[in-house]
This record gives sequence, structure tokens and C-alpha cells, in this order.
Amino acid sequence: MKAFMDKDFLLDTDTAKKLYGDHADMTKIPVLDYHCHINPQEIYEDRKFENIAQVWLGGDHYKWRQMRTNGIDEKYITGDASDREKFQKWAETMPRLIGNPLYHWSHLELRYYFGYQGNLNADTAEEVWNLCNEKLNSDDFTVRNIIRKSNVKLICTTDDPIDSLEWHEKIKADESFEVKVLPAWRPDKINNIEKPEFKEYIAKLSAVSGTEVKDLSSLKAAITKRLDHFAKHGCVVSDHALEYVMYVPADDNEIDAILKKGLNKEPISREDSLKFKTSMMLYLAKEYNKRDWVMQLHYGCKRDNNGYMYDRLGPDTGFDCINNYAPSSELADFLNALSKTDEIPKTIVYSLNPNDDQAIGTVIGCFQGKNGVKNRIQQGSAWWFNDHFVGMTNQLKSLANLSVLGNFVGMLTDSRSFLSYTRHDYFRRILCRLIGEWVENGEYPMDDKLLGGIIRGISFNNAVDYFGFDLEKV
Amino acid sequence: MKAFMDKDFLLDTDTAKKLYGDHADMTKIPVLDYHCHINPQEIYEDRKFENIAQVWLGGDHYKWRQMRTNGIDEKYITGDASDREKFQKWAETMPRLIGNPLYHWSHLELRYYFGYQGNLNADTAEEVWNLCNEKLNSDDFTVRNIIRKSNVKLICTTDDPIDSLEWHEKIKADESFEVKVLPAWRPDKINNIEKPEFKEYIAKLSAVSGTEVKDLSSLKAAITKRLDHFAKHGCVVSDHALEYVMYVPADDNEIDAILKKGLNKEPISREDSLKFKTSMMLYLAKEYNKRDWVMQLHYGCKRDNNGYMYDRLGPDTGFDCINNYAPSSELADFLNALSKTDEIPKTIVYSLNPNDDQAIGTVIGCFQGKNGVKNRIQQGSAWWFNDHFVGMTNQLKSLANLSVLGNFVGMLTDSRSFLSYTRHDYFRRILCRLIGEWVENGEYPMDDKLLGGIIRGISFNNAVDYFGFDLEKV
Amino acid sequence: MKAFMDKDFLLDTDTAKKLYGDHADMTKIPVLDYHCHINPQEIYEDRKFENIAQVWLGGDHYKWRQMRTNGIDEKYITGDASDREKFQKWAETMPRLIGNPLYHWSHLELRYYFGYQGNLNADTAEEVWNLCNEKLNSDDFTVRNIIRKSNVKLICTTDDPIDSLEWHEKIKADESFEVKVLPAWRPDKINNIEKPEFKEYIAKLSAVSGTEVKDLSSLKAAITKRLDHFAKHGCVVSDHALEYVMYVPADDNEIDAILKKGLNKEPISREDSLKFKTSMMLYLAKEYNKRDWVMQLHYGCKRDNNGYMYDRLGPDTGFDCINNYAPSSELADFLNALSKTDEIPKTIVYSLNPNDDQAIGTVIGCFQGKNGVKNRIQQGSAWWFNDHFVGMTNQLKSLANLSVLGNFVGMLTDSRSFLSYTRHDYFRRILCRLIGEWVENGEYPMDDKLLGGIIRGISFNNAVDYFGFDLEKV
Repeated sequence: MKAFMDKDFLLDTDTAKKLYGDHADMTKIPVLDYHCHINPQEIYEDRKFENIAQVWLGGDHYKWRQMRTNGIDEKYITGDASDREKFQKWAETMPRLIGNPLYHWSHLELRYYFGYQGNLNADTAEEVWNLCNEKLNSDDFTVRNIIRKSNVKLICTTDDPIDSLEWHEKIKADESFEVKVLPAWRPDKINNIEKPEFKEYIAKLSAVSGTEVKDLSSLKAAITKRLDHFAKHGCVVSDHALEYVMYVPADDNEIDAILKKGLNKEPISREDSLKFKTSMMLYLAKEYNKRDWVMQLHYGCKRDNNGYMYDRLGPDTGFDCINNYAPSSELADFLNALSKTDEIPKTIVYSLNPNDDQAIGTVIGCFQGKNGVKNRIQQGSAWWFNDHFVGMTNQLKSLANLSVLGNFVGMLTDSRSFLSYTRHDYFRRILCRLIGEWVENGEYPMDDKLLGGIIRGISFNNAVDYFGFDLEKV
Repeated sequence: MKAFMDKDFLLDTDTAKKLYGDHADMTKIPVLDYHCHINPQEIYEDRKFENIAQVWLGGDHYKWRQMRTNGIDEKYITGDASDREKFQKWAETMPRLIGNPLYHWSHLELRYYFGYQGNLNADTAEEVWNLCNEKLNSDDFTVRNIIRKSNVKLICTTDDPIDSLEWHEKIKADESFEVKVLPAWRPDKINNIEKPEFKEYIAKLSAVSGTEVKDLSSLKAAITKRLDHFAKHGCVVSDHALEYVMYVPADDNEIDAILKKGLNKEPISREDSLKFKTSMMLYLAKEYNKRDWVMQLHYGCKRDNNGYMYDRLGPDTGFDCINNYAPSSELADFLNALSKTDEIPKTIVYSLNPNDDQAIGTVIGCFQGKNGVKNRIQQGSAWWFNDHFVGMTNQLKSLANLSVLGNFVGMLTDSRSFLSYTRHDYFRRILCRLIGEWVENGEYPMDDKLLGGIIRGISFNNAVDYFGFDLEKV
Repeated sequence: MKAFMDKDFLLDTDTAKKLYGDHADMTKIPVLDYHCHINPQEIYEDRKFENIAQVWLGGDHYKWRQMRTNGIDEKYITGDASDREKFQKWAETMPRLIGNPLYHWSHLELRYYFGYQGNLNADTAEEVWNLCNEKLNSDDFTVRNIIRKSNVKLICTTDDPIDSLEWHEKIKADESFEVKVLPAWRPDKINNIEKPEFKEYIAKLSAVSGTEVKDLSSLKAAITKRLDHFAKHGCVVSDHALEYVMYVPADDNEIDAILKKGLNKEPISREDSLKFKTSMMLYLAKEYNKRDWVMQLHYGCKRDNNGYMYDRLGPDTGFDCINNYAPSSELADFLNALSKTDEIPKTIVYSLNPNDDQAIGTVIGCFQGKNGVKNRIQQGSAWWFNDHFVGMTNQLKSLANLSVLGNFVGMLTDSRSFLSYTRHDYFRRILCRLIGEWVENGEYPMDDKLLGGIIRGISFNNAVDYFGFDLEKV
């Protein structure tokens, strides 16, 4: 029997251990986190946390969700209980989460950052609380030092087109911080014409771009200015949260009329909303392609399902689910529309529904190859609800079966927390385990040069090449 | 090599064996079968079976289906061949069913109830026939004694709202039988307004409730009387067979008009049928919530597909399949509609399509938490066509990844047979195997107290708490 | 650690090795390839290949696709680079394809046909090139000799209804070739009424059948003549490439009107196209049933997605993907429509979407049994993008769980290449591995007679029985 979550966690063969030790260990092979939701202001101001509940339970709706499932009262989740009380409730919940990735993520963080080797439960909560807080209160655990400890070389945040990017500017100007922090372009609010806040958002876009948006061409002009603003700040990647990748084409006159309805706060039909989004996505994709940016398409999510809690807590509080309507034919048609004029940008596709793995794997295979870019259209790493041993393993196997696994850009945290870089470690262990198994089963030769190249690539180097970051490869 | 289906069947690690022996063995840890289709009259009358063909092949459409697939003539399935001949055909089919759960279920029953350690095939059929029949003919094998042998503490049958529940009353009054037998409320016929038999069914409902149903409000009044009748007989659980969980809201005036069409035998459009069902499901769910009942939603099934055989044999004879149309968005919207007024009852969701596992796991996570109930919204055990090693393992893993596995209410037989309690044993072996694997791989600590609590919970105790049964926990 | 792809490749238990050696080894147990796309003319003319690039890269869009994914310029794929250069680019791509079936298929071919035991990569490309070409240039490696080396007893090609079948006639007349080569009926062009080439195709059908097609009854008459022509040449199997198995019934008058639109090159609505296809599929299915032919239904594919490349290279060049819209309800309704008059032919169902495995497994179970044919409705082997360890294993497990695995007709190559028979070997290794695992885990008895019967059956004998081929069983 293996010890509980020791240094060989998930590494079940000698080959896996060796590959991990030589080519994936986070202390040797750095982290490139090309997609996350951390706040650049907290990096610039080098925030320090008072206690472990603040880091873990302050905004992590993954944990909130499981506490609710475990029957914990909302008072101890987002309510007015003390941090210590909230931590106790989380600690009580932990052992019930057998098989859940939060059980592993939490312990990986306890081991990597705090050197704690035990298991967290109601009885050990006090001990863990004290140990973590002591460290968090030291200067060794400011946000910047946590990032350094995590061997992170580059971070892309997630930013709205109207964002000034002032914190990115300040971080860049601060020579005392050597890690690159770049913005990423997330223009969902431009696309969501059916939402009540659309008009107000576009007014802000007009203001910040100095271009009054009153029709389609002025909207595009305003967007172009913001794209240039982001590019000036080093942005090379966009991100889209889509219900699904739709393709309902319409001509510009029609789109112009729909946009004007939106700007007048007239009701937008479902059909019109799909046409508008399709049109904007095609436009944006071509802009990304011009700039050699990467387009990330995240889809398959239905958000804010619990009206009762939404009224109390707002969005991103743990009430989202998989939307299993996502026709692969429209994803293919969307990319095909771009292919006709040879304007598909580098693209990464993620679905929240793991059933889409194979459809995505076969769609991306239809649009590969340009300028020698390897896996120019990528399937993204197992996302959100799939970010666990089963989900990651299945994504890796599906990608290997249908595409060129060796060129995969690998893991990202997608996280709001500064302690979540160990998810890269989790991913790399799963990767080394899988490849170790293949090698030991005689499915791939034991060739350290080939294997090392593949594992270092998926861990770090492939992303450097793919996004074109100015970083040294390892 | 492990011996064929011996006492350690499916238990592949020492941890799995230990956990099973200490915390799951059916002879120690009792069975709570909260959903099945056995006939309470046969319990009351303490039926005895003449032979093994009667128990196994009298009504088990799982076996019929595979016999047909194996090319066996219908004469030997539901036709006029002798029981001995039918048994021979089944025995011949068995070895071809390599990898099929029926192969395991049948042998588990032979071992547990009849002490037979060999394997059933054409050559051993005679020996098995004689062995089983000898036992079945003894007083040791009446229905009640089989239930006792199976260490069953409580059974919920499946009952129509118009059922008098006389057999439940008689069983309860009979002090010589110590196992609780409770009714469950299955009101499909109230919802199926598009069916030709709707009007006649509602007439019966009127009669039995003493409330003439002529519009929506009298329908609700009649239903309330029957709910009260069921509650008086100890019912705490409902069950719904749905094509999918639909959400097509409409106001009461519209529903009233649709109902009147149904009562006049006018044709009901697809849209109207969905509206009527949505409305009735919302109404019933709120009634369950008031009474603190559990609502079971079974969906993803298309029934009675073979017209040729339906004309000859009727429903539930082995001609159903998975319906893969089941939008997770409507399931979420249905629960959300109930959440707005905080009226979601305790709910268990099952789909016949295993692809729905992850969508369900994420939907239920949006509606958790009330009165401290753990996993208030549950994903049900792998159902019907998924009731095998692969299906159960995947359901357990998906649930662990997305919810709190430790609070799962576990297995049920869903069976028409009195010998099927060993399916609980099958499930528990799979559960202990999975958890044993996690522990031996270092993914969870080897802590007998935590693990024992989890396994006893999923095997028995969680269901006691969740349904609120008056049973002692173990 | 197992050696890289040695004789025990994928055989991880002693039982698997023994079962494979005794009952599956291709040198002992012959191959029956009941579905492929090889050119009968090349068999008749006994083509010889100049080099390995010609065989491997001449038409294999599986390999093209992965080369494009790996960023290789089209010049080295379908362009004017030399064969040696193309082979080098393929060799470079190989090691990146870790976990991909092409990596295994290619090495299986190198071992089986050329005796090469190393691994192909940029460094070994020259060595492999020389070794293979030397053999390919010998008389030992003509097409017929490759087929003989592969221990193939029977091949079904894929043929258009208007094909003269002259090459099949010549092969049959040539007594020097002992392998049976039969045509298969693939009438997609008759069904695709919405395509621009429909009218011209029907004109050819009129000509070749000597029956002027001007309405539905003359279309059926023309088809009947061609069915008879195929039957005369030994055809017993049809094949259909369907977007999905649709069921939109309409009466013959309506179909006649739709057909006339198609013959007039008027635009065909989506609805009309579905009605026409439904009607033709019902008609053809009944014709197959009369003749005791097997109907193959291949669905779940969206073809020719890349407009840019389609304009340059045409169809079947590596730009197809999974279409995930495929309602199981329509598949069931289609079969049910045939069942009403008891006219379902023997049928094999394949979906390109692996998520359909369980839906298919349950649908086929509703329509089994007639004339004692075992698994009269079959689920086909993992198809195309699923033709790998994961896909085959999952298809086998799903089939075992839901149907009678012992009667499965097993593998086919579906290939355009004469070196692809080792895919049968790949499949048999996976089959023996799975069954070996079951036996060693105590899930099935170690009974060589039962197991040998099952494995020889799935490898060869079941297909002989099912299709009714005039071949000796082994």
C-alpha cells in the first residue's frame, strides 16, 4: 500500500516516478499559467492573507458548493460566521469528499506550501489552522512570494475590454517583480446583446475607446481600439464563455439592425442573439488571426441556475452546471466559415461536458496546419468540473487518440486563488502516470530523450512556442 | 488468478477485502431496498415458488431480452414450453453472456441463496435445476424467508395513486413479519394526459378519492386525498418515469384548458403535453416538499419500441431503450422554478443514459442545502441498463468527483424478483473495490473509522437518515 | 517493464497470452474482412508498390490529418514533395503521436509484414525506408501475396449500385486466386436527393439498369435490377453512410413528388430530404430482408468540413468529424417501422460518436430474434476515430453489458490500404486482454472450451455464420 499522498502521489510505476522527477517536478520545471482569474491589483500590492480561511474560503465557489452539499448552513459558507468557524466546517466536510479533487487539491496545497503531511479533518483542523496562519503571516507568503515559490514564470489574467489595465502597467514597471503578468481579452459583455446591462456596457466601451458606438461599424472601430490597447500591454490571448459555439450567419445589415435594437433596449429574440454572437465571433476571430493571438472558446456551461441564491449572492458563487446542448456541427461550421478565407486564428477549444471530448478531438483535426504551428487548433485541458484524475486522464487519452498529444499546451489553473498552482503538479503527475503506464506496457519505447521532450513540452515548452511568449525553454 | 466468483469476488486488494468484511457484508450490514417493483400481495401471502424458472424467468425481462438476442425462439421465453425447457435455454445462453451483469447476478444468487459454487451452462443445468428446486420447495424459501435471509430491514414497493394499499395494511397488521414494507407513490398515469387511457384513469381516481375531477383544482384536490392516504400508510417517497425532465411553464388557466381536452379525449399536442406534465410535476414536487417526501426522477427511457411484440406481450417485456434526448438545461430550470419559492423537495435523479452522469452531478450541485440534510439532491445509483461493474463504477466516480460521495444513499434493486437482493452485494463489492483502490494508491488515508463510516453509510445508514426511516443504524 | 511492442503486445496476463496464442493469432485463425474500401482492380491486376510511402501515404487520410496537426506543410502530405521526403516527415511525426493508434498500427505493420522490431522516427527513417522497399519490390509483396500473408479468406469491397462489378467478375474467374472477393452495396448516392449531382447520378442508374427513372416506382424498379445484379455477384451485405438514422415517415405520393423535384434539380428542403431518405431506407431494408442481406448503418459523421481544403483536394482527404446529433428515438422508430411487418433485415449499427455505444446497445436489444440468428441486430466494431485501445475496449464492454458479446461478428478494417489487416490483430489482442482480465479476476471461469469458442467466434466463425459465407469454420 502506498502512503497517503506522499511525494510519489499518483506515480504508480518506476517509469512514472522517473519521468516526473526528471521532467515535470514543479521545483525544476516552471509553471506557465496562461489562463486564470486572479486579481492583478493583489499582485501589484503584494497582498498578504490573514489566515487560511481567507485564501481557501474567501472566494472559492468549488468549496462552497461541496459545503452546501454536505448540509452546512450558509452562515458558515458565505455568511457572518468567523473565519475560524468556517474553516472548521470545511475541515469537517473534507473526509466526506472521498474521491473528490478538492480533497487532493487541498492536501497538495497543504504539502507544497505549508509542509503539512497529515490529513485535514475536524480533529486536525486546529493544528492546520495554526500551522498555515503562522506561515501566511510571514513575509515569505505575500502574493508575490507565493507565486515565486510556485516557480511561475508567466501569468495571464482575465480582463474586460474596458479595463484600463493599470495594474498590469504598474506590475510591468515594477522591476522588483520578475514574473510576467499579462492581460487576456475576455469580451463576453460585447457579445451578450440579450442581457439587460448591454446598453450600459456599450456606453462604457464608447467612453473608454473615445468612439461613440451607434452601429456595427462604430462598434468594430471601438473594439479595434481596445484590441490595440490590450496588444500594447502584451496581450496575446482572448477568452470566450459561450453557451455553445453557435453558427447562425447573417449579413451585416441584419446585424446592424439587431445591434440597434440592443442599444435601444428593445427585446432581442433568441435567433437574433445567436446571429449577433455568430457575427461578433467571426469578426473577433479574424482580428485575433491578424494579430496572431490565441482564441480560447469555453462552452457547455449554464450559469446562475439557483434564482433564490442568485438574488442573495450574485454570479460565480457555485450555482453553475453543464449544458449538454452543444452541436458539434455548429462548431465545425463556425471554424469552416473562417477557413474559407484562411482566417482561423490559433484556437483552444474547451467544453464543460466531458462527453464532448471526442467530438472536439475530431473537429479540431479538420482545421490544422498553417505556418508550421504544431496543433494550431488545440483541445484545452480538462476544464472546471472535469479537473480531476478521471477527467484529465480521459482528456489526455482522447487527445492522444485523435490528435498529436506531444504538442499539447497543457495545464492552466483557471483559478481565483494564489495557492492553486499545485493543480499544475496534479496534472503533471497524472500525465506522467499515464505515459509511464504506456511505456511499462510496451506501448511506447523507453527513450528518455523522446519522453523528456514530450513531458517538458506539455508541462511548459509547448505553451511558450504556441503563444509565442518571450521565455526561455527548459 | 482468482477463483471464479468466490467469496472475494471483485475484491482485488487487501483493503477492499477488509472493508467489505467489516462494513459491507450483507450478512452483517442489512439491506434497505427503497425502490423496487415486487408485489406486496406475494409478501403478505408468503408465496412459495415451484421451481427456479418461475423465479428467474417468470417476469424478468432482462433475461428474456438476452435469450432473444441469443436467437432463442419466443416459445422458450414467454411461450408455452415447459419451465424445465425454458431453464435449459437460459442455461445455454449463460456462457455466451461473458461480461454481462446477468452472468454475475445469476451466479451471485446461486451462491448466496442455494450455495451453488459452479457455473451454470447447458451441461450443469440439470444439477442446478434440482438443487434450486429442492430448496425452493422447502419452507425455508417462502418469500418472507427469502427476504429475511437477505437481511432486509425495509422495502418500498411501487404503487399507483389509486391503489387501496390493502396489502400494505395487512402486512403491517401481521405481527409475525418484522420487515417494514412501505408503499411508494408513482403517479405517472396522472401525468400522461396524451395516452388513450387517461380519461378512464382519471375516472377511477375520482371514484377512489371521492372527488369528481372536472378541472385542475378538483384534480389537485383528488390528488391531495390520495397523497394523504399514502402518507397514512407510511409512504415517504415518490417515483416518476419521465421521458426527460421537462420545463415548459404555462399558467393555470392554460393547464386547466389542456386538462379539459384530455378529459374529453380530444387530441393533445406535444407542446400541451409538456406543459401539462411540467405543471403537474411542479405541483407534486411542492406537495412532496410539504410532506418532507423524497421525489425520485427516473428519465432517459423510450418504452415499448417493438410494435410487433407489444401487440403480443404488452409493456415491460424487454423492449425499452435509452432515449438520448434529455436537455440538462430543462432539468436545471425545473429545479430552479421550485427554488424560487424555496420549495424543492429532497430529490433523487436517475438517467438511463450514462452520458448524463456528469450533467446530473453538476445540476444537483446547484440546489443543495436546507435543514442540514446531507446531499439533499442526490444522483441515484446506476440504473437498469447501467446496473453493472462499469456503470456502477462510473456513477460512483462521477458522484465522487462532483458531489459528496460520503453522503450517497446507495443501492436499490428496482427489481420484480425476490432473489435480487444480491444486487446490493454486487454494488457493495464494487464500492469497496473502488475505495480500496483509492486507499491503496495513497489517494485517501487508511483510517478505519472514517472509511467504515463512509461504507456503512452508503450501504445502509445514509438512506435511514435521508428518508427518515424508523430504523436503527449500524 | 514489457518490451516495446513485442509478440506479447497488449497481452498483460498469462491467460490473455494463452487465449491469443491458441485462438486468435492471425497466422492460425484467418481473417474475414467484411467491410473495406480497397480497389478490386488492384487485386485483379495484382499491383506491386514502389515504396512504403506509396502504401502508407498514398491515400491514408488518417496519417495526413496527423501530419497537418503536427504542422507539416501540405507539400509533404498531398503535395509535390518526393516519396522519400514525405516518408521522412511522417517518420518525424511518429514519436509525437504517443498514445495514438497510428503509432501502434504502423509498428504492427512494420513487425508483421517487414519484420522490423525497432521504432520509427526521424533517425530510423532511412533504415526503415530501405528495409520496406526491398521487400515491397519483391514478388512476395504483390497485393495478392500481401492478402495471402495476412491469412485473409474473404474480402467485401464497397461498391456503387451503378458499378459493373467487372473486376469482381474477373477475380472470380481467375482460379489462381483462392481468396473470395465480394462486392458490397453502398447506395448513398440514391438517397442523397439534396446533392447537386443527384440528377446526373440517377441518369446513370437509368442507363445501367435499362429502366428510365421518372418516378418512385421506376426508381424502385431500377434499384431492384441492380440489387439482383449485385446478388448475382455474391453480394450479401449493404452499407449506408448516414448523418444519423432518421425517421420522418411520409406516404408514397409525397415521396414521389419530392423525387420529381430532385429529378428537376429543384431545391429540396431539409424536411423533404429526411422524408425521402426515410422512405428509401425503409424500402431498401425490406429488399435486404427479402434477400437475407445484412444492412450496415454507419452514422454520426459530418463530412468535408474544411471548405478551403475541399476546394483543393476533394472528399475523403482528412476533413471529417463527429456529428453529435443522433437521436436514438429515431433509430428505434425506424427499426420499429420495419418490425411492424416483421421485415427488419439482419442489421449492424455503427456510430462515429462513442457516446452512442449505450444507446445503440439498448436499441438493438429491442429488435432481436428471428430464425434463430444470434445477435441478429449487431452493434458494429468501434469505427474510424474509435478504432483504438480505448474505443475498442469500451465498445466491447458496452456490448458485453447490454447484449451477448459471445455472438459478436467482430472486426473489419474499413481501410483503403492493403497493409491494414494487422488491425484485426490489434483488435484480437484487445479482445484477449479484456477476456483474460475477466478470467484472472474471477469474473468468468477458466474454461478453454467455452473461451476458445468465444474468441474464435468473434475473430472469425461468428461472421461466417452471420453473413452465411461459404467458408470453413476454425
